[in-house]
Amino acid sequence: MPRVIVDCAIYQDGCRAEGPADFSDALDQARAAGDSFLWIGLHEPTEKEFALVTSEFGLHPLAVEDALTAHQRPKLEVYDDSLFLVLKPVRYEEKAGTVTAGELMVFVGDSFVVTVRHGEANPLSTVRERLEDTPEVLAHGPTAVMYAVADAVVDHYLDVADALHEDLDELETEVFAPDGSGGQNTAGRIYAFKREVLEFRRATGPLAEPMTRLAGAGVPFVHEGSRPFFRDVHDHLTRVNEHVEGLDRLLSDILSAHLAQMGVRQNDDMRKISAWAAMAAVPTLIAGIYGMNFRHMWELRQPWGYPAVVGLMAGVIALLYRMFKRRGWL
Amino acid sequence: MPRVIVDCAIYQDGCRAEGPADFSDALDQARAAGDSFLWIGLHEPTEKEFALVTSEFGLHPLAVEDALTAHQRPKLEVYDDSLFLVLKPVRYEEKAGTVTAGELMVFVGDSFVVTVRHGEANPLSTVRERLEDTPEVLAHGPTAVMYAVADAVVDHYLDVADALHEDLDELETEVFAPDGSGGQNTAGRIYAFKREVLEFRRATGPLAEPMTRLAGAGVPFVHEGSRPFFRDVHDHLTRVNEHVEGLDRLLSDILSAHLAQMGVRQNDDMRKISAWAAMAAVPTLIAGIYGMNFRHMWELRQPWGYPAVVGLMAGVIALLYRMFKRRGWL
Amino acid sequence: MPRVIVDCAIYQDGCRAEGPADFSDALDQARAAGDSFLWIGLHEPTEKEFALVTSEFGLHPLAVEDALTAHQRPKLEVYDDSLFLVLKPVRYEEKAGTVTAGELMVFVGDSFVVTVRHGEANPLSTVRERLEDTPEVLAHGPTAVMYAVADAVVDHYLDVADALHEDLDELETEVFAPDGSGGQNTAGRIYAFKREVLEFRRATGPLAEPMTRLAGAGVPFVHEGSRPFFRDVHDHLTRVNEHVEGLDRLLSDILSAHLAQMGVRQNDDMRKISAWAAMAAVPTLIAGIYGMNFRHMWELRQPWGYPAVVGLMAGVIALLYRMFKRRGWL
Amino acid sequence: MPRVIVDCAIYQDGCRAEGPADFSDALDQARAAGDSFLWIGLHEPTEKEFALVTSEFGLHPLAVEDALTAHQRPKLEVYDDSLFLVLKPVRYEEKAGTVTAGELMVFVGDSFVVTVRHGEANPLSTVRERLEDTPEVLAHGPTAVMYAVADAVVDHYLDVADALHEDLDELETEVFAPDGSGGQNTAGRIYAFKREVLEFRRATGPLAEPMTRLAGAGVPFVHEGSRPFFRDVHDHLTRVNEHVEGLDRLLSDILSAHLAQMGVRQNDDMRKISAWAAMAAVPTLIAGIYGMNFRHMWELRQPWGYPAVVGLMAGVIALLYRMFKRRGWL
Amino acid sequence: MPRVIVDCAIYQDGCRAEGPADFSDALDQARAAGDSFLWIGLHEPTEKEFALVTSEFGLHPLAVEDALTAHQRPKLEVYDDSLFLVLKPVRYEEKAGTVTAGELMVFVGDSFVVTVRHGEANPLSTVRERLEDTPEVLAHGPTAVMYAVADAVVDHYLDVADALHEDLDELETEVFAPDGSGGQNTAGRIYAFKREVLEFRRATGPLAEPMTRLAGAGVPFVHEGSRPFFRDVHDHLTRVNEHVEGLDRLLSDILSAHLAQMGVRQNDDMRKISAWAAMAAVPTLIAGIYGMNFRHMWELRQPWGYPAVVGLMAGVIALLYRMFKRRGWL
Repeated sequence: MPRVIVDCAIYQDGCRAEGPADFSDALDQARAAGDSFLWIGLHEPTEKEFALVTSEFGLHPLAVEDALTAHQRPKLEVYDDSLFLVLKPVRYEEKAGTVTAGELMVFVGDSFVVTVRHGEANPLSTVRERLEDTPEVLAHGPTAVMYAVADAVVDHYLDVADALHEDLDELETEVFAPDGSGGQNTAGRIYAFKREVLEFRRATGPLAEPMTRLAGAGVPFVHEGSRPFFRDVHDHLTRVNEHVEGLDRLLSDILSAHLAQMGVRQNDDMRKISAWAAMAAVPTLIAGIYGMNFRHMWELRQPWGYPAVVGLMAGVIALLYRMFKRRGWL
Repeated sequence: MPRVIVDCAIYQDGCRAEGPADFSDALDQARAAGDSFLWIGLHEPTEKEFALVTSEFGLHPLAVEDALTAHQRPKLEVYDDSLFLVLKPVRYEEKAGTVTAGELMVFVGDSFVVTVRHGEANPLSTVRERLEDTPEVLAHGPTAVMYAVADAVVDHYLDVADALHEDLDELETEVFAPDGSGGQNTAGRIYAFKREVLEFRRATGPLAEPMTRLAGAGVPFVHEGSRPFFRDVHDHLTRVNEHVEGLDRLLSDILSAHLAQMGVRQNDDMRKISAWAAMAAVPTLIAGIYGMNFRHMWELRQPWGYPAVVGLMAGVIALLYRMFKRRGWL
Repeated sequence: MPRVIVDCAIYQDGCRAEGPADFSDALDQARAAGDSFLWIGLHEPTEKEFALVTSEFGLHPLAVEDALTAHQRPKLEVYDDSLFLVLKPVRYEEKAGTVTAGELMVFVGDSFVVTVRHGEANPLSTVRERLEDTPEVLAHGPTAVMYAVADAVVDHYLDVADALHEDLDELETEVFAPDGSGGQNTAGRIYAFKREVLEFRRATGPLAEPMTRLAGAGVPFVHEGSRPFFRDVHDHLTRVNEHVEGLDRLLSDILSAHLAQMGVRQNDDMRKISAWAAMAAVPTLIAGIYGMNFRHMWELRQPWGYPAVVGLMAGVIALLYRMFKRRGWL
Repeated sequence: MPRVIVDCAIYQDGCRAEGPADFSDALDQARAAGDSFLWIGLHEPTEKEFALVTSEFGLHPLAVEDALTAHQRPKLEVYDDSLFLVLKPVRYEEKAGTVTAGELMVFVGDSFVVTVRHGEANPLSTVRERLEDTPEVLAHGPTAVMYAVADAVVDHYLDVADALHEDLDELETEVFAPDGSGGQNTAGRIYAFKREVLEFRRATGPLAEPMTRLAGAGVPFVHEGSRPFFRDVHDHLTRVNEHVEGLDRLLSDILSAHLAQMGVRQNDDMRKISAWAAMAAVPTLIAGIYGMNFRHMWELRQPWGYPAVVGLMAGVIALLYRMFKRRGWL
Repeated sequence: MPRVIVDCAIYQDGCRAEGPADFSDALDQARAAGDSFLWIGLHEPTEKEFALVTSEFGLHPLAVEDALTAHQRPKLEVYDDSLFLVLKPVRYEEKAGTVTAGELMVFVGDSFVVTVRHGEANPLSTVRERLEDTPEVLAHGPTAVMYAVADAVVDHYLDVADALHEDLDELETEVFAPDGSGGQNTAGRIYAFKREVLEFRRATGPLAEPMTRLAGAGVPFVHEGSRPFFRDVHDHLTRVNEHVEGLDRLLSDILSAHLAQMGVRQNDDMRKISAWAAMAAVPTLIAGIYGMNFRHMWELRQPWGYPAVVGLMAGVIALLYRMFKRRGWL
C-alpha cells in the first residue's frame, strides 16, 4: 500500500473491525457484510497513486480531477454511484493574523468513504478517534464519516471566527485610542483584515448550500438518521457566516469611523497650530511697529518704553492663550 | 428535586392543577389526563442535572447539547417527538448603552414544555403569571407556553428598539449641534452604537424564520388555534427588524453626515484662521517697510508719519475685517 | 351611539340605504338582505367603546388589540371570519419638511366594514363621498370600501412623493450653488431629509405585500371584480416605492457629492489664501533685507533706493498676482 | 374621425388592407374576416376623444384611466378581453446630457391593436413601415405590433445607453486629467449624471417583468410564434439594464475616486505651498537677525557683510529648493 | 466553400471521419448515419456568407441576427430545432491591464454544431484537438462540442481572474508603501481597475444561468451524460464569479483605505510643516524684538548681547525640535 494512504479500516455496526490489508479485498468484504463500510484516508495523492482508488470505487472522473488539484470551492456533487463533498478547513495564524485554507474531499459510496486531504491543518485523525468513540453515530454508515468531518471543520470555523473577533477588539482599541496613536498604517491594517475575512468567507460561504442539501431529503447515500446532524452542522455554519458578515461590516464601519476621526484630528491639530501661530504673529507685528524708523516716535525715547512693550507682548500672548484655551483650540 | 428547577406544574384545561412533586410522575399523570400538560422551568442546568429531564422526555441529544451551552442563534428544530426553540432575550443597559443577549430554550412535546434559561434577564415568571390569567390561551396546550415566551421576548425587543431610537435622537442632537461641541469621539460613539445594533440584530434577525414556520401549517405539536398568535409575534418581530435595520442605516448616514460636517467645519476654521492671519500680515509688511534703513525716506522725518502709518495699519485691519465679515469668513 | 362612531350606514346594490340607528339592528338587516353591507367608521375608540363593535361583528381579539393601539405596521391579516388591513396614511408638513404617519384599520366581514382611524390626516369622508358616487364599484360589496380606502391612501402617497421630490430639487440647487452658500448645516439637512424618507418608507414599503395578496386569488371576502382595482393600487404603490427608493439613493449621492465639493472648495480656498500669503511674504522679506543694519549697504544711501524698493515690492506683488491668476489659484 | 387618430388600418395575412374609414365598421370587418386585425394609433387623446375607442373595443376602465394620464410606470396588465402594455420610450438630449421619458401604451385584443402615445419622441410610423415590410412577423396578429413597438423602444434604449457611456468616457477624461482641470463642479456633474441614469432606469427597469411574462406561456392574446421575439426583446432589455447598472456603479466609483484625488491634490498643493513658504521664512529670519540693533555686531561693520548675508540667503533658498524638489514637494 | 469556414468535419462514434467537402452533403451523411454529427467552424461571417449555413441547418432568424452582430451578452436560447449559446471569451492584456471580450456562438442541432467566432482570442482549434483526443467525451454528440467550448472559455476566465489578482497585489503594495510613493494617480488606477473588472463581469456573470440550465434536465439536444460536465463548468464559473466579486469589493475597500491614508498623510505633513514653521517663527519674533528702536534697551549695548540672543534663538530651535520629535510631529 502506498505511503499516501494515511489510514484504512473497515467499520461494522459502528465499530472498527479488522480487515484485509489490501483495500480492494477490504471493499469486497465490506460490501459482502452489507452493514459495514470501508474508510480510506489519503494525503495529497498524485494522479498515479489515486488511479488505483478511482478504478476500484468507480469514482467519477470529474470528481477525481477535482480531488487531485487543490483550489476548489466547497461543494457537493451527486453522481450516480457516489457523493463528492469538498470542504475547505482553515488555519488561523495568531501572530500574522492570516487565514489559510486547505482542502478536504470526501467521497461517499454505498459501502465506502474516501477522504482526501490537501494542506497541513486537517486533524482527520481526531475525527476518526472521536467517531470510534460514538458507535451510535458511526452506525449511520459512510455518511457518519461525512458528517463528522464536516462537523470538525465547521467547529474549527467557530474558533477562527472568535479569534478574528478578538483581533477586531484589539483594532478597535487602537483606532479609538484617545491619544490617537493609531498611526499611519491603520487603514492598511483594516484593509489587510478585510482580505483575511474575505479569504475566510470563501471557505465558509459556499458550504451552506451543500449542508442544506445534506440536511434535507433527496440526496442519495445519506442515512436518514444523520439528517438532524447535518442540520446541526448547517446551523453552526450559519452562525459562522453571520459572524463573518458582521465582521466584514464592522470593518467597513471602522474604516469610515477612522476616516471621520482623521478629519476631527486634523481639524484639532489645525486649530492648535493656528492658535500658536497667532500667539507668535501678534508680538511680531508689535515688534515690527517699534522697529520702524520714524524720527518722531515718542514712546521710543521713554525709559519705560521697552519694558512696557515687552509687557504688552506678554499680555497679548497670555490673553490669546486664555481665549484659545476657553474655546478648546488648545 | 434539584434547585435548578425553578418551577414545575401541571396545567389542565388552561388552569394550574396540583400534581405530584416528582416530575416523572407528573408527566405520567399529564399524559394520562390527555388534555393537560407539564411545564418545567430550568435555570442554567449542568449536563448532569439535565440528564434526568432528557431521558424522561426523550429529548434529542443534539437539542440537549445546544440547551446546555449558551451562544446559540435563534432557531426552531423539529425532531420526531419534540420541538426545540431557541430565543435570545436581550437586556438594554440604559447608562452604558449596551445590549446584552441571554438565551432561552423551549422544548415542546405532546404533553410537556421544558424551558431552559441562560443569563439573568428573562422574566419567565411574569410570563407564567400572565398565562395563568388567560386560560383560553393556555388551553392551546404546550404551544401556548411557547407562544407566550416568544411574545414576551419580542415585546421586550420593541422596548429595546425604542430605547435605542432615543439614543439615536441624542446622538443626532450632539452631532448636529450648531456649536459643534460633538468633539473628538463622535465617530467612536457612532461605531460603538453600530456594534450594539449588530448585537441586537443577531438576536432578532434569525428569529423571523422560526416564527414564520410556527405561524404556518406543517409544524407538528402546534395547536391550530395558536397560529394567529405566532403570526402576531412574527408581525411584531418584523417591526423590530425593520426598526433595527432603519437604525443601522441611519447610523451609517449620520457617520457620513458627520464626515461632511467635519469638512465644512475645517473649511470654516481655515477661512477664519486665514482671515486673522491676513489681518496680522498686512500691518507687519507695512511695519517692515518703515523699518527699512534707507537714508532718503521722507515720511520718516515727518512728525505726522508715525501716527499716519499706525492709522493706516488700523485702517487696513478694519477694512480686511469688514471684507472678511461680509464674505462670511469671520 | 357613542360619539366615537363617525358614520354608520347600510349600502345596498351600491347605494346608501336608510337603516336602523343602532348598528346591531343594522347588521342584522344587512345580513338579511344578502346583497347589502354595513359600514361603520370609528375614530380612536377606547377599549371599552370598541368592545361593543368587537362582540357584535365577531372580530379576532388580536386584531382588536392592534386596532386599539397605534404604531402598527401596514399588514393584512386573514382570520376565519374577517379580514384586517392596517394602512398608514401620511401627512406632509410643507414648511418643516416632515412626514407624519397616522393609522387606518379596516375590518371586512361577509356583510360589514369597520374602519378605525388614528391621528388627524385621514379624509375617510371624501372616500365615502367618492364611493357613493360610483355605485358600480360599491356594488363589489365590503371590499369596495377596502379598495377605496387603500386607493385614497396610496394616491396621497404619490402627492407626498412629489412634494419630497420638489424638496430634493431645492436641496440640489442649494448644494450645487456656484457661490457655495450651502453653509454649515447642509449635511444635517440631508440627514434630516433621509430620516423623513425612512419614515415615509415605513408606511409605504410593507404595504406592497398585502396589496399583492389582495390583487391575487386566495384571500377570502374579496369580490373577484375588485382584484384589478387592488392591482391598480399595488401598481401605484410600486411607483411610490420606486420613487422613494430613488430619493433615498439620490440623497446618499448628494451627500457624497457635497463631501467631494467640500474637498474641492477647501482646496480652492487654501490656494487662494496661500496666494495672498505669498504676495505678503515676499515684500516682507524684501523689507526685512533693507531693514538690516549693515554699515556698507550702498543702496540705502541712494536717493532712488526707497522708491526703487517700494516699486520692486509692487512689481513682485503684481507678478505673483498675475501668475496665480493664470494658474487659477485666485 | 378626430384628428387625434394618427393612423388606422386593417391588416390581413400580414398585409395592409383597405378598409372602411370608420373604425367601428373596420373592427367589425376585421372580426368577421377572422385572420385580420385593426390597428389604430392615437396621440395624446383627451378623455372625450378616447371614450369612443374605449366603448367600441371594450377596454377596461382602469387601463383607460392609465392611458389618459401620463407618468405611468412600464407594466403589463392582463384583463379579461384585452392586454394593456405601458412602455416608456426615452429621448436623449446630446447637448444637455438629459434623458426624457415619454409614454406609449398598447392595447391588444382578439382582433385589434390600439397604440396611444404621449410626448414627442415615439417614432411609431417607422415601426409601422418596418412591420409592413415583414409580413411573416405581421402574420402573428395583434401581438406582432406589440412586439414591434417594444422592440423599437428597447433598441432605442441601447442607443441611449451607448450615448451615456460616451458621456461617462468624457467625464473620466476630465476627472483624471493630469492637470486636474476638473474644476469645482465635477461632483455636481457626476451627481447630475446619476440623476439622468436613475431617470433612465425608471423607464427600463420595470419593463423586464412584462417582457418575461410575454416571452413565457400563460399570457392570453399572445401568438405562440411571437414568444421568441419577446424573448429577444427581453434579452436586449437585460443588456440595457446591466449596462445602466454598470453605469450607476461606475459613477459612484468615479465620485469616490474624485474624492480621493481631491485629497491627494490638496496634500500636494499644501506641500508645494509650504515649501515656498519655508523658502521665504528662512531668509526673513536671517534678515530679522541682522536687523537687530545690538551695538556689538562685528559682521555689520564689515564691507563684505551685506553681500555675504544676501549670498547666504540665496544659498539657503537654493538648498531648500533642491531638497524639496528631491522629495517631490515641488 | 467560402474562406470564412475555418474547419468542417464529421465525427462518428467520437472520431473524426472523412466526409464530403460540401457541408450540405456532409450534413445529409451525418443525419443518415444517426450516431455522427457535423461540426462547422466560422469566423466573422457576413450576412451573405452565413445565409447558406442558416438555410441548410434551419437556424432561427433571431439567433442568426445575433450571431452576425457582435456585442451580445452570454445567453442560451432554446428554439424548436436548435440550441443557441453565446459565450464571451476574454483576453487579458498583461501590460495595459485591460480585459477585452470577444464573442463565440455555438448552434447545436440534432446532428450538427456550428461555431461562430468574433474577435481574435478564441483558440477553437485547441478545443477541437483536445476533443479529438478524448473520444469518450466526443461520443456525447454535438453537446460535447458545446461543453468543450464552454470549458475552454471558462478555464481561461480562471487564468484571467488569477492575473487580475496579481495586479491587485501589486496595487496593494503600491498603495500601502510606507514611503507613500503611491502618487497622484492612484485613485485613477483603482478606478480603471474597477472598470476592467466590470468588463470582465459582463462576460462571466450572465453565463451562470445558461450553465445552470445546461447542467439540469429540461434542455433539449443535451446528451444526459454531458450534464455533469456542464455542472463542472458551472462550478468553475461560480469560482470565477466569486473571485471577481471579491476583487470588486477589495478594490472599493482599497479606495476607501487610500482615502483614509491620504487623510493621515495630510495630517502628518501638516504637523511636520507646522513644526518647522514654529521653529522659524519664534526666532523671528526674538529678532523682531531686538530690532525695535527703543533708546533704552540695556541688552543692546552689552558686548555679550548679540551672541546671547543668537544662542537663545538656537536654544529655542533645539528645544522646539526635541519637543516636536518626542510628540511624533517630526
